[in-house]
Amino acid sequence: MTPSTDHRWLRWPTGMPGSRMAYGSDYNPEQWTRDVWHEDVRLMREAGVNIVSLAIFSWARIQPDEDSWDFAWLDEVMDLLHANGIAVDLATATASPPPWLTARHPEILPVTRTGETVWPGARQHWRPTSAIFREYALALVEALAERYATHPALAAWHVSNELGCHNLYDYSDDAARAFRAWLRQRYASLDALNHAWGTAFWSQHYSSWDQVLPPRLAASHPNPTQQLDFKRFSSDALKEYLCAERDVLRRFTPDVPVTTNFMVMGGTKGMNYADWAGEVDFVSNDHYVRPGEQSRDELAFCANFTGNLAGGRPWFLMEHSTSAVNWQPVNLAKRPGEMIRDSLTHVAHGADAVCFFQWRQSAAGAEKYHSAMVPHAGADTAVFRSVVELGQTLDALAPVVGSDRKPARVAILVDWDSWWVSEQDSHPTSYLRYHQEALDWYSALQDLGVRADVIPTGTDLATYELVVAPILHVVPQPLAAELASYVDSGGHLVTTYFSGIVDENDHVWLGGYPGALRDVLGIRIEEFAPLLPDEVVELDNGTTGSLWTDRIDLVDPEVKVLAWYTSGDHAGRAAVTRRPVRDGSATYVSTRLGAGGIAPVLAELLTAAGISAELGPRTGGDVELAIRTNGTDEFWFLVNRTARHVEVPGLSGDVLAGPPMSAGGALALEPRGVAVVRRPG
Amino acid sequence: MTPSTDHRWLRWPTGMPGSRMAYGSDYNPEQWTRDVWHEDVRLMREAGVNIVSLAIFSWARIQPDEDSWDFAWLDEVMDLLHANGIAVDLATATASPPPWLTARHPEILPVTRTGETVWPGARQHWRPTSAIFREYALALVEALAERYATHPALAAWHVSNELGCHNLYDYSDDAARAFRAWLRQRYASLDALNHAWGTAFWSQHYSSWDQVLPPRLAASHPNPTQQLDFKRFSSDALKEYLCAERDVLRRFTPDVPVTTNFMVMGGTKGMNYADWAGEVDFVSNDHYVRPGEQSRDELAFCANFTGNLAGGRPWFLMEHSTSAVNWQPVNLAKRPGEMIRDSLTHVAHGADAVCFFQWRQSAAGAEKYHSAMVPHAGADTAVFRSVVELGQTLDALAPVVGSDRKPARVAILVDWDSWWVSEQDSHPTSYLRYHQEALDWYSALQDLGVRADVIPTGTDLATYELVVAPILHVVPQPLAAELASYVDSGGHLVTTYFSGIVDENDHVWLGGYPGALRDVLGIRIEEFAPLLPDEVVELDNGTTGSLWTDRIDLVDPEVKVLAWYTSGDHAGRAAVTRRPVRDGSATYVSTRLGAGGIAPVLAELLTAAGISAELGPRTGGDVELAIRTNGTDEFWFLVNRTARHVEVPGLSGDVLAGPPMSAGGALALEPRGVAVVRRPG
Amino acid sequence: MTPSTDHRWLRWPTGMPGSRMAYGSDYNPEQWTRDVWHEDVRLMREAGVNIVSLAIFSWARIQPDEDSWDFAWLDEVMDLLHANGIAVDLATATASPPPWLTARHPEILPVTRTGETVWPGARQHWRPTSAIFREYALALVEALAERYATHPALAAWHVSNELGCHNLYDYSDDAARAFRAWLRQRYASLDALNHAWGTAFWSQHYSSWDQVLPPRLAASHPNPTQQLDFKRFSSDALKEYLCAERDVLRRFTPDVPVTTNFMVMGGTKGMNYADWAGEVDFVSNDHYVRPGEQSRDELAFCANFTGNLAGGRPWFLMEHSTSAVNWQPVNLAKRPGEMIRDSLTHVAHGADAVCFFQWRQSAAGAEKYHSAMVPHAGADTAVFRSVVELGQTLDALAPVVGSDRKPARVAILVDWDSWWVSEQDSHPTSYLRYHQEALDWYSALQDLGVRADVIPTGTDLATYELVVAPILHVVPQPLAAELASYVDSGGHLVTTYFSGIVDENDHVWLGGYPGALRDVLGIRIEEFAPLLPDEVVELDNGTTGSLWTDRIDLVDPEVKVLAWYTSGDHAGRAAVTRRPVRDGSATYVSTRLGAGGIAPVLAELLTAAGISAELGPRTGGDVELAIRTNGTDEFWFLVNRTARHVEVPGLSGDVLAGPPMSAGGALALEPRGVAVVRRPG
Repeated sequence: MTPSTDHRWLRWPTGMPGSRMAYGSDYNPEQWTRDVWHEDVRLMREAGVNIVSLAIFSWARIQPDEDSWDFAWLDEVMDLLHANGIAVDLATATASPPPWLTARHPEILPVTRTGETVWPGARQHWRPTSAIFREYALALVEALAERYATHPALAAWHVSNELGCHNLYDYSDDAARAFRAWLRQRYASLDALNHAWGTAFWSQHYSSWDQVLPPRLAASHPNPTQQLDFKRFSSDALKEYLCAERDVLRRFTPDVPVTTNFMVMGGTKGMNYADWAGEVDFVSNDHYVRPGEQSRDELAFCANFTGNLAGGRPWFLMEHSTSAVNWQPVNLAKRPGEMIRDSLTHVAHGADAVCFFQWRQSAAGAEKYHSAMVPHAGADTAVFRSVVELGQTLDALAPVVGSDRKPARVAILVDWDSWWVSEQDSHPTSYLRYHQEALDWYSALQDLGVRADVIPTGTDLATYELVVAPILHVVPQPLAAELASYVDSGGHLVTTYFSGIVDENDHVWLGGYPGALRDVLGIRIEEFAPLLPDEVVELDNGTTGSLWTDRIDLVDPEVKVLAWYTSGDHAGRAAVTRRPVRDGSATYVSTRLGAGGIAPVLAELLTAAGISAELGPRTGGDVELAIRTNGTDEFWFLVNRTARHVEVPGLSGDVLAGPPMSAGGALALEPRGVAVVRRPG
Repeated sequence: MTPSTDHRWLRWPTGMPGSRMAYGSDYNPEQWTRDVWHEDVRLMREAGVNIVSLAIFSWARIQPDEDSWDFAWLDEVMDLLHANGIAVDLATATASPPPWLTARHPEILPVTRTGETVWPGARQHWRPTSAIFREYALALVEALAERYATHPALAAWHVSNELGCHNLYDYSDDAARAFRAWLRQRYASLDALNHAWGTAFWSQHYSSWDQVLPPRLAASHPNPTQQLDFKRFSSDALKEYLCAERDVLRRFTPDVPVTTNFMVMGGTKGMNYADWAGEVDFVSNDHYVRPGEQSRDELAFCANFTGNLAGGRPWFLMEHSTSAVNWQPVNLAKRPGEMIRDSLTHVAHGADAVCFFQWRQSAAGAEKYHSAMVPHAGADTAVFRSVVELGQTLDALAPVVGSDRKPARVAILVDWDSWWVSEQDSHPTSYLRYHQEALDWYSALQDLGVRADVIPTGTDLATYELVVAPILHVVPQPLAAELASYVDSGGHLVTTYFSGIVDENDHVWLGGYPGALRDVLGIRIEEFAPLLPDEVVELDNGTTGSLWTDRIDLVDPEVKVLAWYTSGDHAGRAAVTRRPVRDGSATYVSTRLGAGGIAPVLAELLTAAGISAELGPRTGGDVELAIRTNGTDEFWFLVNRTARHVEVPGLSGDVLAGPPMSAGGALALEPRGVAVVRRPG
Repeated sequence: MTPSTDHRWLRWPTGMPGSRMAYGSDYNPEQWTRDVWHEDVRLMREAGVNIVSLAIFSWARIQPDEDSWDFAWLDEVMDLLHANGIAVDLATATASPPPWLTARHPEILPVTRTGETVWPGARQHWRPTSAIFREYALALVEALAERYATHPALAAWHVSNELGCHNLYDYSDDAARAFRAWLRQRYASLDALNHAWGTAFWSQHYSSWDQVLPPRLAASHPNPTQQLDFKRFSSDALKEYLCAERDVLRRFTPDVPVTTNFMVMGGTKGMNYADWAGEVDFVSNDHYVRPGEQSRDELAFCANFTGNLAGGRPWFLMEHSTSAVNWQPVNLAKRPGEMIRDSLTHVAHGADAVCFFQWRQSAAGAEKYHSAMVPHAGADTAVFRSVVELGQTLDALAPVVGSDRKPARVAILVDWDSWWVSEQDSHPTSYLRYHQEALDWYSALQDLGVRADVIPTGTDLATYELVVAPILHVVPQPLAAELASYVDSGGHLVTTYFSGIVDENDHVWLGGYPGALRDVLGIRIEEFAPLLPDEVVELDNGTTGSLWTDRIDLVDPEVKVLAWYTSGDHAGRAAVTRRPVRDGSATYVSTRLGAGGIAPVLAELLTAAGISAELGPRTGGDVELAIRTNGTDEFWFLVNRTARHVEVPGLSGDVLAGPPMSAGGALALEPRGVAVVRRPG
């Protein structure tokens, strides 16, 4: 991870109060007539909106044809917003190339793995590596930057939109050329490439760079390192595109921060945001909830992770939804309280901006059934009333603005290479889900009332007393050394099945699994033993495992067994082991326990590490606690995870938002309710 | 709907009795040797066959190469048939282009959404918009028309075959050009197109017509109005092709009726037959049963709908099957009685012709396991004996010939735009099934013993006392006005979830759902609330809902609640509402009730409208009643919907077919049995 | 079947004992450094390895570019192996073309049915019919043959690898040309082709050879005979390629046997190995286990079938796995005893060689999680210890070497045409599984303790007393005659649903099913009656049927009914019939009974035929017996099919492998244990 060393927040327009939560949405006035614009700003003021993202899909409107430009409407909207005290996060409008461009240059259209052209009709139908596309796109960025550099409403630049949402993997000849250039950069010599890709296997030795291709449709499983490097390359290609836009913008407005909206959500894994985060002035994120038992925890997990990708500094929630989205198989409306709870959960984890897609629900187009701040039914609606209420709540949270995340004592490590590789094909099981395993640990920690930081590899582990590294599959030698040193220094490490298996080239660490972590864990495994989809095994602590098991040999006599298999092929053998190392320890979990099964194992480890629930044992897992700090004060966010009333006792401080505190220091949270309490730091 | 104003029936050959049910099949003599032809006509006479469809797939036989023609065999077959008293519905033979044509002109082959060429090997591998294909095809039509114009066996022309079965959606460059021309015709100006398609969304503004494309594979959901217009265009392109063939035929034989076989069955929705019906001299249809609980009702639904597409006039059942088909995952044989019941159900709903695919079961080719009138096992079979029995029954039904459908008091409205749009992507749920919802209402009416007409939008509603408009999603302003006026005039309107939502451009009617019907229904809905696939909610009348719910606000104080939700997010709120309007009413059903759940709601509405079961309460839903009338007599078709013996009391009249009537006026129907009774009109 | 008349076994190097089981693996030293090679041969000696397959994927290493060759490393490996007493089965290295070749000649890449290019990245990305590929490949074969013709380690040639695993069906223009040439060869005239393909159907008449195409993506079901002939052609094209390599090799080393590894396993059906077997000097096979209830029986079934494809002579188990593979959805490790049991089951059915893929588990590439003789964890592992144990066991089985399979009295007939056609589309059901039905009969025979030979059509049936012909769908007239004659001569024939239906052109035998077998079975069926996926019917013997039923008419009054349907549409009618014919009989099973349901039917037929369990009734189905014979001695292989201890009483002879025999002649088999007993023949 490249830490975001140069964090720069919004340049609030002159005359607007600096210390405020940003609140607003994507705003697409081009879909509406001018009279609606005036109604819009009136309602924005009513809702407390102070920022909007503008021009995200305006390319065709701004540049109706190659040689014609139309800024007048945008000038008018910018002026109107500014006149009403609303700042602008101005997009570079490159997300969706206009029809005239793709008609003239169909060679910018992406190509799928199976050779199909991706045609216009939706959005993001451009090759990340197309020189032609870039020429047109950067000309547009330059035109916008030049025109609005000094506009008083301009608070930030918004590069393109959700980079990689649809065009991450392009297998065109442009991509092939760029992939080769990227590989030359990475490997310098063909020998190094041939070694890294293991081309001695299946007669794949390259004798010339121009023989190398993206992993297009192949007769069987394509080379795994080719697959991995194509993932790395594809993430880098978009990052490089992001930087190209950013550099144009910085040339014109060195003092205006540049951001782009990440998509840390729902297991989106293609873009290595740990690697991207250092390239923006502040991190922004889009998050949409999917239905399911862990949907709220998944939101918190992502918000937490985004906060740590931002180095603990404030970040910008660029998009979430007031209610239903439009792209899931069934799009559920949010229940009462859900929208505000979701918004404040993001703030709890470091967001200083709460924005939605979008301001006014479209009447036409593919997203017309996506909810908005102003629904189809208008302002006289429950949704808009919640929007107004949220605006007031965010006002009350002004003291929080600028504060950092307060680090937890426990960390969950997310590693992009491990994520990518562990889910590749031709593996012991095709059912492994990296993100789900990480989320299970987060949920289990929540159930135990213990805060955790979801952090990318590369983060300094020294500050954490317990580090969970689920499916840490790719462990280059330096990472192995770092983890060993962490444990030696008294840290408690927990890792799981299929960890420590390969190096950075996806080459297996030989001599017994989990190769790179064998010594620190004090165990050895000869063979993997995945389970069939409906198979479960029982453990002696009453929990069950699924997906995976291992036949563990205890090599280090110090290793303790925390749980035993009592059924299945390994009945009577260790399921969970722990090697004490002076003050630290290294724990191995050989099966998928799920959040419920993780909790008892984790409880034992937390006790050993001296970590307990900050809200005390009584609140249990009903409430998520997240803390922000500005050095002086702490802000405790208490989020009711349940649909029940929950009482949190033993508190003190000022309630900034939420129900009043009782004389005894108790807060009674509504179902899905949130409270924010300021306490001396 | 363009009503079929100029209904013209078969031109029966001189010397053949005019007032007869047409009975026969597709006949493909080119698959057999000459000696089989003679056996064929002998068996046809035994079965009472008096018409066959000929030459449907004979292009390659008639025109073995570009410059060679062979009519001799066809002359011989035509003469042989005529000599045996069998008329011919002569096909234009264009359904399947011969190999020499596609080898010479591969540019007539269709292209899929993802850019794949559709090669020869099956049938219908031609682009509807190919000028080259049309040139060859019309030359063939002309040659046939010229040669057989005066043949005494010729009773009708059969244009191509099942137009659109496989080649409806073609994404080739030919299609792109034709789509643009169609759009210019529809919109006149690019501004109008840009407005209609909502191209302000996602930067899709067109600055030139030649930028417009079919909705080929896109990066995400393609523009919904583009999708809709491509559906409209594709239906129109085939209709235009139908008309081109028809016009050639009319040039040669202005007095011979022209038809083509529709496919009103199984939810086939691509061809807007309401729009096509006016282009043929009489409507023909193909229908095949799919297994399932509602399979018989589905057949009746389709037959009924076909009859109304034909404007109530007689129509031609061009294809159905004596037993199993060959293209389903499992192809079930028909059970005893099933074939005759199915045939007579079509007659009940207006068919004056009962034909099968095909006469003699093929020994080779992709349809060799499709049943026929003469099975592989020959004439000494249960199937052929049923075929003979059916022939005799149809003879007995000669008095029915030429009679019209007797309109029902209840109508179910089918709207092609609503069908197309409501099932598009990026909607609240992807599980909505338009055709199933309509069928559920039909089944519920059958269960209550009440006849209904399934009618296309555009039919005059004035004659109906109750109109059910399931998922009437697309409601342009004139339709909204028509429905309001219908209710104002004392009509009873019932509509369901996701109705009245958009206009003809798929733009949402703003201000609260169901926009276009909000006033007439007297309710308002702020947000959609679809259900997850396995989710159900309970209603206070003991039924359950699935798929969808709404949080209904009762705006008009007159609105009554017919059923309440008792579980789910909307427990305690209205599920079914009814707004009385003078003598009429407007009812809204906010969830999918299924046939069983619809019945109690419907019963209440029928009572209010004064509509009761014509066979009286005792027969219940066991028997479907359909009535034809010739102005003098009525013909009551009584179809046993069950596999049990059913007695129908209280009848009078002459039994034309079926069991004898008891002195007391009762008919004892066999399982799956049918009776036809003539009564004074 | 072309019997393998010229069986020639390995040419063991001078100085190596000739009478030995071959034992070893694929060996891919190019993936490892030289120091590992020396460790390899040391461990090979420890394990008793005496042969390896070399250079299978070495093309890119041997010929790094078009004009450069590198044999030095291979010379060194060959010498090293020879020096250590290890013979070499030398591959021709053509399995995977190197990047330089596909970069220079992308026109050798296969094309899918839908027109997608199959790119490099995996293996076998070459068109079987590419003249360009063949030119390069045969040049390589020639270079290898020339260089190693006289190498003392060379024991056999290994043509390419798993021919057809990924590139069997190629739809390229090369394939189209070759298909046409193959068709001209088969049919001589276009008239014959048009007749065979039934092109009178759907206007598919060809007027020129160059109009004929492979069955590429079509608008609907492509012509079934075109599909069938494309399957035949594709198998032949690879066979022809095999012969082309073989002929080069024979030119250089007429005395060295040539083989290639078949894939008789898991229902792989594309290559007609009955037709290929005569082209190799000895048959080789690869077999991998899939999880499931019948997985062990499936292995035995395939081993047995391979033995009979080899004409009963010894064959070479070229690949199986020591434990998990890498290409299944979940890849299970083998349980204790499983690997040795699997190996010896192959030997029991005629294998004189037991080899694995591969020697040392790869550290990189798509197969790195495929188990090997030396796992990632090294030699100090359970797997390697089993490998050593197996080597010792194979040593003890030296007396078995060279012995033939002892024919059984029961045969199960496998017919490639029937396999291909019965699973094609547009059939009564799409759920029919040919291989599974055959396997069910094998399992049922095992359950009854009765040995059976799985034999290809074309094998002389006269030696068998009972022949089971499951789903013998394609019955040309000569086969019908052969079966009738077999029954007339006292043979007992059993066949099932969908048998005897079509001739060699997939044309239905008319007059009632099962056309070609109607007379011999004495029954007649008018219509097929398949069942829906979850439907079952009951029989009066307590079993159930699924998938299929028939309404059988008993035509011959001699026909006895062995089981009646007691539920379903045919309740009260015959389910299983038997027509006695002098000493023989012909039995028809009209439904899928599964192994459990087959057993009682089979038991009755076996009794009638005087066939009983050779191990006596007490051992039941717990143990599989397979017998090899060298004319003097018999070798009884007793394989414990269960995971329990099983005692086999009543034996005599010398125990070559397995537990000692008790004084009373009993053997106590371990769970999954195997014993081999030598007895006088």
